[in-house]
Amino acid sequence: MLKVPEHQVAGRQAIDGKLGPLIDNSGHFYKPLQDDDERGTRELTFYHSFSSNTRIPHHIRRFFPVFHGTQLLKASDRSGLRPHLVLQDITSDHLNPSILDIKIGSRTWYLEASNDYIQNCFHRDKTTTTVSLGFRICGLQIYNESGFWKPGRKLVRNFTADDVRSVLRKFVSSNVGPEPDCCFAGSVYGGCDGILERLLELKTWFEDQTMYHFRSCSVLLLFDKESFLRGKTPFAEFKLIDFAHVVDGNGVIDHNFLGGLCSFIKFVSQVLADLKGSTMEDKI
Amino acid sequence: MLKVPEHQVAGRQAIDGKLGPLIDNSGHFYKPLQDDDERGTRELTFYHSFSSNTRIPHHIRRFFPVFHGTQLLKASDRSGLRPHLVLQDITSDHLNPSILDIKIGSRTWYLEASNDYIQNCFHRDKTTTTVSLGFRICGLQIYNESGFWKPGRKLVRNFTADDVRSVLRKFVSSNVGPEPDCCFAGSVYGGCDGILERLLELKTWFEDQTMYHFRSCSVLLLFDKESFLRGKTPFAEFKLIDFAHVVDGNGVIDHNFLGGLCSFIKFVSQVLADLKGSTMEDKI
Repeated sequence: MLKVPEHQVAGRQAIDGKLGPLIDNSGHFYKPLQDDDERGTRELTFYHSFSSNTRIPHHIRRFFPVFHGTQLLKASDRSGLRPHLVLQDITSDHLNPSILDIKIGSRTWYLEASNDYIQNCFHRDKTTTTVSLGFRICGLQIYNESGFWKPGRKLVRNFTADDVRSVLRKFVSSNVGPEPDCCFAGSVYGGCDGILERLLELKTWFEDQTMYHFRSCSVLLLFDKESFLRGKTPFAEFKLIDFAHVVDGNGVIDHNFLGGLCSFIKFVSQVLADLKGSTMEDKI
Repeated sequence: MLKVPEHQVAGRQAIDGKLGPLIDNSGHFYKPLQDDDERGTRELTFYHSFSSNTRIPHHIRRFFPVFHGTQLLKASDRSGLRPHLVLQDITSDHLNPSILDIKIGSRTWYLEASNDYIQNCFHRDKTTTTVSLGFRICGLQIYNESGFWKPGRKLVRNFTADDVRSVLRKFVSSNVGPEPDCCFAGSVYGGCDGILERLLELKTWFEDQTMYHFRSCSVLLLFDKESFLRGKTPFAEFKLIDFAHVVDGNGVIDHNFLGGLCSFIKFVSQVLADLKGSTMEDKI
């Protein structure tokens, strides 16, 4: 019944006998709790806290995967029974979803971490767009006529600011060549129910909330072209994922996440602005 | 005619034969251009660019000191003639101004800097509130009946989040003891022309502008109690200062400054929120 997720674009994968997440046919995503560090415990603690937190507005809660508790399952690495987080499988209703995994924040390390962890993150942050842009793309797949474009991890890791701009254009285009047409940009990013408006809602919440610091979290952006063409909703949405490093905010806003989110918002809005610019040019 | 600024709370000072800024009696602040590194050149480049940049809105320009060009002056370290930036002396109209110098951003280093510079900044950022709060207080003086409270640099460097909260309350109080009365908070931080509203205007600009990255810049907050009590305006204002590390934004917003600014805004708004809370309690 359980299988390896087909549309995972980043993170540890349950292949070659390794430990990784599994999915079922009922829309559940099973994420193994690791016992070698605090990450699993911290993610479970977060889901417990968040799901019972009455101060989370409804319009913000929808940006998070639904949490269904934990379950003992045979782990994908055949190490036997292991507790798994049972989460909503965000991709389950979609046949060929285009997906971007964007890790938000200009810093992925944190003060309480070990020196080795800090140095590793510090190096990765400097050599990706994390420091320069305040976020980095960790993985992606974009569906087009010829199938999925899914660049390898090394390629993604070396993305520049211009590569990021290009990916955000290709994500909403019918083609993934050097001149993406951005034909879906207005429908996916724009409009009163588009990605941009919802990112702005999330931003407003982050300007105020001091409950959690979302260190090393990602925004998972999903766009299903087929759903869009068939008039099926939602054809585009995003969820926050990966809460293994979330901690108490202690009365301080998550300025690291917020700064990166604002930068990402600017990149998305730039795609729409360029679109308007080019439409203006066509008319002149 | 020239003298050492009386109300400087941070940065290099023109005392004991050292190189530092000077002021005159006509409201000018003379900042020496240093020849031992690129800082002076970069700050001059910024002021030239900014003062001639027609894309800076008027309501944003007022948050920056007026730039009057450069002038050759006898340096304070008696090394002879040296070019100085001629800037607006923000404190000139005030007899006993309370001042906070707040360095904005969770990171003061930058990718192009030398490894030594990065390591120094990285260490300072971790051991002050820069990483945790997204800003740090670099210096302050608060005027009260018994004169100025001006804690030493070591004390300021060791400020915790709670110390910062306390300073922001003392800044708008008639007393600087353990229980500041916050009697000026509504007038200084609140209202449609108060510090908070203006910080929010600055924030809105930072969400959009991709021209400059204000690395290692400070917000200088000034409050003149005597002006306030005499009904003289402006009795409270802020300016951005220290542009020796400003560079081209290259089409990316300054997410580092923006994140820190949002965190600082939350701290200021918390003083007002606590005030409302305590007024409510008084009424109950």
